[in-house]
Amino acid sequence: MPGPRRTQQERSATTRTRLLEAAYECLLDGGYAATTVGAVQQRAGVARGTLLHHFPTRSALMAGVVEDVVERRLEVLTTLGPTEAAPPSSWDDVVDLVWRELQSPAFAAALELWVAARTDPELRDALLPLQERIFTTVHRRVTRLADAEDPRAPMLVQFTIDLLTGAHLAGILRPRAGTSAVVEAWKLTLRQLSDTSVHSGTN
Amino acid sequence: MPGPRRTQQERSATTRTRLLEAAYECLLDGGYAATTVGAVQQRAGVARGTLLHHFPTRSALMAGVVEDVVERRLEVLTTLGPTEAAPPSSWDDVVDLVWRELQSPAFAAALELWVAARTDPELRDALLPLQERIFTTVHRRVTRLADAEDPRAPMLVQFTIDLLTGAHLAGILRPRAGTSAVVEAWKLTLRQLSDTSVHSGTN
Repeated sequence: MPGPRRTQQERSATTRTRLLEAAYECLLDGGYAATTVGAVQQRAGVARGTLLHHFPTRSALMAGVVEDVVERRLEVLTTLGPTEAAPPSSWDDVVDLVWRELQSPAFAAALELWVAARTDPELRDALLPLQERIFTTVHRRVTRLADAEDPRAPMLVQFTIDLLTGAHLAGILRPRAGTSAVVEAWKLTLRQLSDTSVHSGTN
Repeated sequence: MPGPRRTQQERSATTRTRLLEAAYECLLDGGYAATTVGAVQQRAGVARGTLLHHFPTRSALMAGVVEDVVERRLEVLTTLGPTEAAPPSSWDDVVDLVWRELQSPAFAAALELWVAARTDPELRDALLPLQERIFTTVHRRVTRLADAEDPRAPMLVQFTIDLLTGAHLAGILRPRAGTSAVVEAWKLTLRQLSDTSVHSGTN
């Protein structure tokens, strides 16, 4: 059994995790602009020097946050939806998986970073490579759920991700009812689109 | 011919326009958090008291900005795309109109407000009724371009707006190439979808 004493490295990792957790909460509660070094320090309950040891600048902190948010989104995608034990097969599952990830706090945090990156070149540079990674991972994971036989599957996955992202964005302001109608209608359309690539469509 | 002297009311309207123009530029250059009363005052080059006369609080200023941004988006939609003299007819025109509006600075400004509204209830309350207006107007205007005979047109318009919004959002970070591929593929798909609702689909 491991003893109660932790190594310096373990303590350091715990502090880093706590700082990133605090930054994530700041991002969700107040948005990107409110996620300052001071606010994160206060929420994490650590000394200024401790924060600066881990993240010497706000940019360094934000680079850590960007990576953390991507990890959280990937975790949501792994946890949600079908598993190896209960394999999926329909386009409905694909739509549900993408839609549920979009409702997660991790996506709300990612959206904050995304929009802030438009006016913050440094944040943009930190986001770009990681964002590519999440796009690729989401795509691969979602495409695996879809019909592998269908050569149009990657494009239909792309349509699904883009369409649901737009619908989710509209839903931030609009009442929910209209939004889920779009999601249900898209499920029907996907069925039609994946059908017509194999055999003739019906009326 | 009107004389060179303007009425008090005209001067007041000019100042209000100048303040909203300055706020719009702040929003585009630095995002929502950077659009403070002080920054707007400085950019407009007016006295603090002049700004406060028009907009007594930041909330009042933001309510003005929200309305201004909606007006700008509607203007873009009116200016862009087909006119009465050169009527449109295809779904390609619909896609082009929506896509071009999304590339406008007015949409970038709206996105800033939109995302900020998630964590700012007052801004959210100001946005909601106006956002409904723009959704309705866009929808009506775009649906008029589409085939009025097709009972599925309103839903296809909704798909188009949501899908292109999501693709545009992804494009803020990703290279452009992949984004326009999605737009072109969606044009083909729309053709297929609007076809199959009238007669049988083909391979």
